[in-house]
Amino acid sequence: MRYNKKSMKIRLDYNNMMSSVIGKDGIKEDDFKTPSFCRDLKKAFKSVEEGKGKGMMGWADLPYNQDEIVEDILETAKSIRKNFEYFVVLGIGGSALGPIATFQALCHLHYNDLPRRIRKGPKFYVEDNVDPERMEALLDIIDIEKTMFNVVTKSGSTSETMTQYLIINNILKQKLGDKAKDHIIATTSKSAGNLIKIAEKEGYKTFYIPDGVGGRFSELCPVGLLPAAVVDIDIKGLLLGAKFMLEECKSDNLKKNPALMSAVLQHLSMKNGKNIGVMMPYADGLKFIADWYAQLWAESLGKNVTLSGKSCHVGQTPVKALGVTDQHSQVQLYAEGPFDKVITFIGVDEYRTTVEIPKGCEEYPNVNFLCGHTMNELIQAERMATEYAVTKAGKLNYTIMLPTLNAFTLGQLLMYFMLQTAYAGALLNIDTFNQPGVEEGKNATYALLGRPGYDEKRMELANAPQKQNKYIIC
Amino acid sequence: MRYNKKSMKIRLDYNNMMSSVIGKDGIKEDDFKTPSFCRDLKKAFKSVEEGKGKGMMGWADLPYNQDEIVEDILETAKSIRKNFEYFVVLGIGGSALGPIATFQALCHLHYNDLPRRIRKGPKFYVEDNVDPERMEALLDIIDIEKTMFNVVTKSGSTSETMTQYLIINNILKQKLGDKAKDHIIATTSKSAGNLIKIAEKEGYKTFYIPDGVGGRFSELCPVGLLPAAVVDIDIKGLLLGAKFMLEECKSDNLKKNPALMSAVLQHLSMKNGKNIGVMMPYADGLKFIADWYAQLWAESLGKNVTLSGKSCHVGQTPVKALGVTDQHSQVQLYAEGPFDKVITFIGVDEYRTTVEIPKGCEEYPNVNFLCGHTMNELIQAERMATEYAVTKAGKLNYTIMLPTLNAFTLGQLLMYFMLQTAYAGALLNIDTFNQPGVEEGKNATYALLGRPGYDEKRMELANAPQKQNKYIIC
Repeated sequence: MRYNKKSMKIRLDYNNMMSSVIGKDGIKEDDFKTPSFCRDLKKAFKSVEEGKGKGMMGWADLPYNQDEIVEDILETAKSIRKNFEYFVVLGIGGSALGPIATFQALCHLHYNDLPRRIRKGPKFYVEDNVDPERMEALLDIIDIEKTMFNVVTKSGSTSETMTQYLIINNILKQKLGDKAKDHIIATTSKSAGNLIKIAEKEGYKTFYIPDGVGGRFSELCPVGLLPAAVVDIDIKGLLLGAKFMLEECKSDNLKKNPALMSAVLQHLSMKNGKNIGVMMPYADGLKFIADWYAQLWAESLGKNVTLSGKSCHVGQTPVKALGVTDQHSQVQLYAEGPFDKVITFIGVDEYRTTVEIPKGCEEYPNVNFLCGHTMNELIQAERMATEYAVTKAGKLNYTIMLPTLNAFTLGQLLMYFMLQTAYAGALLNIDTFNQPGVEEGKNATYALLGRPGYDEKRMELANAPQKQNKYIIC
Repeated sequence: MRYNKKSMKIRLDYNNMMSSVIGKDGIKEDDFKTPSFCRDLKKAFKSVEEGKGKGMMGWADLPYNQDEIVEDILETAKSIRKNFEYFVVLGIGGSALGPIATFQALCHLHYNDLPRRIRKGPKFYVEDNVDPERMEALLDIIDIEKTMFNVVTKSGSTSETMTQYLIINNILKQKLGDKAKDHIIATTSKSAGNLIKIAEKEGYKTFYIPDGVGGRFSELCPVGLLPAAVVDIDIKGLLLGAKFMLEECKSDNLKKNPALMSAVLQHLSMKNGKNIGVMMPYADGLKFIADWYAQLWAESLGKNVTLSGKSCHVGQTPVKALGVTDQHSQVQLYAEGPFDKVITFIGVDEYRTTVEIPKGCEEYPNVNFLCGHTMNELIQAERMATEYAVTKAGKLNYTIMLPTLNAFTLGQLLMYFMLQTAYAGALLNIDTFNQPGVEEGKNATYALLGRPGYDEKRMELANAPQKQNKYIIC
């Protein structure tokens, strides 16, 4: 598909972050000009610019280096669409959140409920937990002999994903014997871990996750592209959008680089005590973008040590909201509560359909004013009204506008947030791309389940202070 | 159904909130004993105890005063289950979050995907937004002539719900003429608003929302009970559980009243700067309890004025997480990030099924240790390991344990959180039950859509500072 770059460019409106609008909590024009700010900004910009494509910034190359892979994915997806009734992603965290967000954004909002002749592809599920009730529920509703499973783990040893794989593979082998292998596609590291070894031994079709692409930055590699292609999303459009955003964010001039500006707005706000970042898209299609972003932002910036080795405890806690729905849940708090957050609204200029609100309620004036409008007008009015209300209450907010929601604008948005995160991490002078804080929990799990080599941790757990009954109410 | 109260009682374990375990951020045993604390606690307990059933605390009576209503609901639900293929709730906020949470908790996790002969009732949808794309998507997949709509709004003038109603009613009338009325049930105030007038005129079956029951406290009145009964949830069990919890929380002795203790733990933590409250259930069934709780907690406690009329900006921001899924998204931040949050884990002793992890991976020791365990053991180990890891990192947390997930334990949990919220609001000395902060946005919406009587607000909006182009990047 072709997209008009000029009319399809996403916009950043940060008026309501500025003190001239929002009052004392806002950012002053002069804040962008202090020598220390300019020095830090320059350094952060440079480190991201020079880091692109290197180390763990392989994600910045994905829009440029996947031509062959994309062809392979499209061919594979075509065959899956024809031959399978169900497609199930087995993955967690970065292997699940991107596929879920992209599916929600670009497929029919009740895709699985559509008849096959309209879907023209398999039903789509992402299993991102190890709750036994959920696994049983999935097995109740799929026909495993008509299902393609996509096992996704870069390390090849993610406990949750490998658990799911072991269960599914066992059933497939019982039912299909040697043909089990035709029901599994592995997406994993080319060089490391167990899954690649298992895949080679069993003969699975395999896609690779590049070394320099971490889980939360992986939506634009085969982790995200294969599931997207299976549900007929224009993956070339996604990559084009991402490439366009990379090119729009090449300037070290803050006012010409929207991802850099967003990072700066958040950074200055964090320094000013705003430890909460709300993301509130006004579109059901964008609902799970907030979930995907929550991982990206939380896991990248939540760190306890700087690159210089200094102790710190930084990171803004992402909060997911949905407009207008959560106006009826969270906006009371946002308006009247503490001055502790930055709200990112995401709006859409043109929804992909128009629904009219019919007339016929003349007797009831406080309903009748809706009649003759469209739902489109209502949701836009509510977005603007909520922006107005929180601004009036002095709460920092800014808005990202999408001309419409399609593969090209979604690709832009994904890259926008990845760049913003990289810039923000550089401004905080932390390692944006690691996640050492999850090791403790993993190791404790291994110890509890008796994994060889974890005797010391098992001992540590056994020697931990016992729970005191006086602090349990039962 | 019968439930064993003793074995089905939920438990609160707050060891990891105490300084003896968690270190400097924790609560000291002595904090419970200071004269000012004891005075405030007594006052808060008394105001809730004496308020029950009065004013906006009608929800505390719901387990006692609905015998006839329950019979009517059960009869109505029976007929809907027999005669309709789809059941759609039209509602937002408190009219949607409870029904969604209860459905997710007590129905099959892929309920709508089950064949009708297993479901034995209609497919279930809750429309809680006014995105035109979502409305169109719903209309694509339901057969409106086989659908029962439950329009739920206490005020009878919620713009989003009435918009949905207008659209649906118009289609129903076009297709079914006078029989349209047999496809709509109204749940609304008996005395106030438009919906009751419309319902009487059109002849809709109607259920009433008691005056003293606000949206976010309404799950145990017909708002929640009718949808629950339609999907065959044991609503009597829900009410029994809620009643049991009310009775378990009658003591002014903190250590014998779990809801009061939770409120106190959160209150002391808020005073100590913990402005974020994470809720992390380890069960897919409880996923949307975190959403329901987010409204309850945010809208009740997010206030800018005390009952004495003093200016304040209080309220803890609720964050929704899901175990184990969000270990791979948020726990890095929780472990290494700022000391700004309290984490509430919710665990389940016995899941409703057991799934074994098969053997056959002996060659790969760092996968093989999983084999022979169950998913149940894995999810429990991960919950305990995460609790251990965040505790080791000095982050405040406590755990609510459900013996299993059923109507009786869910009823307990809902009442637990409502009581906790009431106590916490009383401790903050605010009006827990109002939501004045949403008026500004509503009024601005009315003005933007040209509702009569909003000329002044329209003028105010027109005179608001214009957006400056220099703060827009496009």
